Amino acid sequence: MSRIITLLTDFGSFYPAQMKGVILQRTREVIFVDIAHDIPPQQVRMGAFALLASAPQFPPGTIHLAVVDPGVGTERRGLVVESGGHLFVGPDNGLLMPAARALGTPRAFSIPTPDCASSTFHGRDVFAPAAADLIFGREPESMGPAVEPVDLDFGVARRTERGLEAKVIFVDRFGNAVTNLREAPPFPVRLQGRSLVRARTYADAGPIEPLITLGSHGFAEIAVNGGRAADLFGLAPGDRILLEEESCSE
Amino acid sequence: MSRIITLLTDFGSFYPAQMKGVILQRTREVIFVDIAHDIPPQQVRMGAFALLASAPQFPPGTIHLAVVDPGVGTERRGLVVESGGHLFVGPDNGLLMPAARALGTPRAFSIPTPDCASSTFHGRDVFAPAAADLIFGREPESMGPAVEPVDLDFGVARRTERGLEAKVIFVDRFGNAVTNLREAPPFPVRLQGRSLVRARTYADAGPIEPLITLGSHGFAEIAVNGGRAADLFGLAPGDRILLEEESCSE
Amino acid sequence: MSRIITLLTDFGSFYPAQMKGVILQRTREVIFVDIAHDIPPQQVRMGAFALLASAPQFPPGTIHLAVVDPGVGTERRGLVVESGGHLFVGPDNGLLMPAARALGTPRAFSIPTPDCASSTFHGRDVFAPAAADLIFGREPESMGPAVEPVDLDFGVARRTERGLEAKVIFVDRFGNAVTNLREAPPFPVRLQGRSLVRARTYADAGPIEPLITLGSHGFAEIAVNGGRAADLFGLAPGDRILLEEESCSE
Repeated sequence: MSRIITLLTDFGSFYPAQMKGVILQRTREVIFVDIAHDIPPQQVRMGAFALLASAPQFPPGTIHLAVVDPGVGTERRGLVVESGGHLFVGPDNGLLMPAARALGTPRAFSIPTPDCASSTFHGRDVFAPAAADLIFGREPESMGPAVEPVDLDFGVARRTERGLEAKVIFVDRFGNAVTNLREAPPFPVRLQGRSLVRARTYADAGPIEPLITLGSHGFAEIAVNGGRAADLFGLAPGDRILLEEESCSE
Repeated sequence: MSRIITLLTDFGSFYPAQMKGVILQRTREVIFVDIAHDIPPQQVRMGAFALLASAPQFPPGTIHLAVVDPGVGTERRGLVVESGGHLFVGPDNGLLMPAARALGTPRAFSIPTPDCASSTFHGRDVFAPAAADLIFGREPESMGPAVEPVDLDFGVARRTERGLEAKVIFVDRFGNAVTNLREAPPFPVRLQGRSLVRARTYADAGPIEPLITLGSHGFAEIAVNGGRAADLFGLAPGDRILLEEESCSE
Repeated sequence: MSRIITLLTDFGSFYPAQMKGVILQRTREVIFVDIAHDIPPQQVRMGAFALLASAPQFPPGTIHLAVVDPGVGTERRGLVVESGGHLFVGPDNGLLMPAARALGTPRAFSIPTPDCASSTFHGRDVFAPAAADLIFGREPESMGPAVEPVDLDFGVARRTERGLEAKVIFVDRFGNAVTNLREAPPFPVRLQGRSLVRARTYADAGPIEPLITLGSHGFAEIAVNGGRAADLFGLAPGDRILLEEESCSE
């Protein structure tokens, strides 16, 4: 049965194909699925979010090959991580961990860098060959010593007396600002003095009306029906926001 | 034999992969072909044009999964449409219809929205599962009641005493403006006072000379050899244009 | 065994899928790998570079279908080229040749344009059908007469008494400027009066420090650790640069 390999990088075009070529040198029993190659350069957190949103949709046995790698060529480790029957391959900089934690209890192993690897393209020279090894049934634990991987998380929105203190983790191409709040707000909220409609879907708000909804990825997102919330509120990834509790008398 | 599934959305990156993951949970006997995921957000007409240009190139039996869906989460219906042996799955907003009409006489059936579907990502939660059902041989008519779908067309260019009145339906990345005129102009024409070379190919015009040619999609397009017609003439999708008949004495 | 077909074009979205559809009309025993479809419009040299960097990563037998084709519809020939067991299909404008030369001794054959081909989309109407013929075992030499193809090369950096005279052939999305110098500089160099760290990897330089390194494609590239070299030095494809030899006394 063909093995599913997802690919996620910040390489843009023509480098990802080289990773596929390296694997196809070894086997054609693969189904490649590109998750994204337009992660903004070296934005590990953005890559980690995209992988977290996507990996759980695939069946166990899938190999996720993810490379957003500002530390390529340094002493940073390469990893293979097993979790919930999924396998992840990529740099040890936190990129793989939110997705791996979402799928089970991750076991991480260091993978060695071959002497002949280039210093700038470990996607092709280290991680794609490791993925090919996994296709041929190599056990993750045989690839290198168990290690404690570098972790990364998106923080936890906190309830305070003023409301919900959250963080923007991603702005999508529709201008929706995805936050680290993992539920719909349990009370009416305002952002920058404007009420947000607590919506089940974008169209629950009136035209150009701002809203907050629990996105398909399980994180609350701030949107504008027919507009761009990130522009309206001036939101960018990393911004801290206060979702102020709206009192009924107002 | 593997089933061909084309995908067309306005999702940009990393959401389309989730639709593929959902289908791969059910079967690996698929060949995915991405038509486009960079349709401008919620531009149903642009998506319908891309699907019309592309779907007829595929063999009968192909499943076209297309989602440009400003009404997601509202009462708008989901559809499966059969036409000429091709199957289309997507929202009932006209997106599927120009392509379906080009391939035969469409039969359209409403598909139900599962209770567990998210309100914002029917591509993953409604349409991809419906496509998987079709792969396993489920008949379109068994999926829901026959319905009269919302239609969409690109209008028809009209001949008047002044010339040809047409509309721009799409500007491509080369700056060519694709019109709703479905033939090469049968007489010499001017646009905004400038003669257009009636060209068989871009290179039939001199450098930086504007031209009109019947595109590979069967619609006349206005181009500039080595330049951008949309910039030269200030053309955008939806613009009405007059291709003025050029008299011989001029 | 499924045949690997790579695709490289300047078509952007939705036209490449039509090329795949044409091939899938004939066979499903294919594995498509997109190398790039975002080559800047009609930039044959940029396409040739991407193909050169990518094709050698694939196994022999791979068919590379590459179309960056400013001369479409003119008398320019179509080609099939065999080299080192790889097959290339595309226009005779130099696009295919750097990759073909890198893989062996190219043998080139002209392919005819069918009467029914459109004048603007030979990717779909000429080259994709030719690739399908090759999948079914048709010999390149049976497709048309042997020809001397149009060539294209990236020039050779020269050593002069002032240092190394090179040319920028490509700026990538990280702002790295890839040059036609095919080795790491054998002595310390300056560009525009600034010393470049001779680095094995990007991180060998300090933050925002410019460097030169031998890229994974075998060409020297100028980069900035954490920045954009093309912006810092004002570099664009085609620019001639002098990598001035730095004397030790300075």
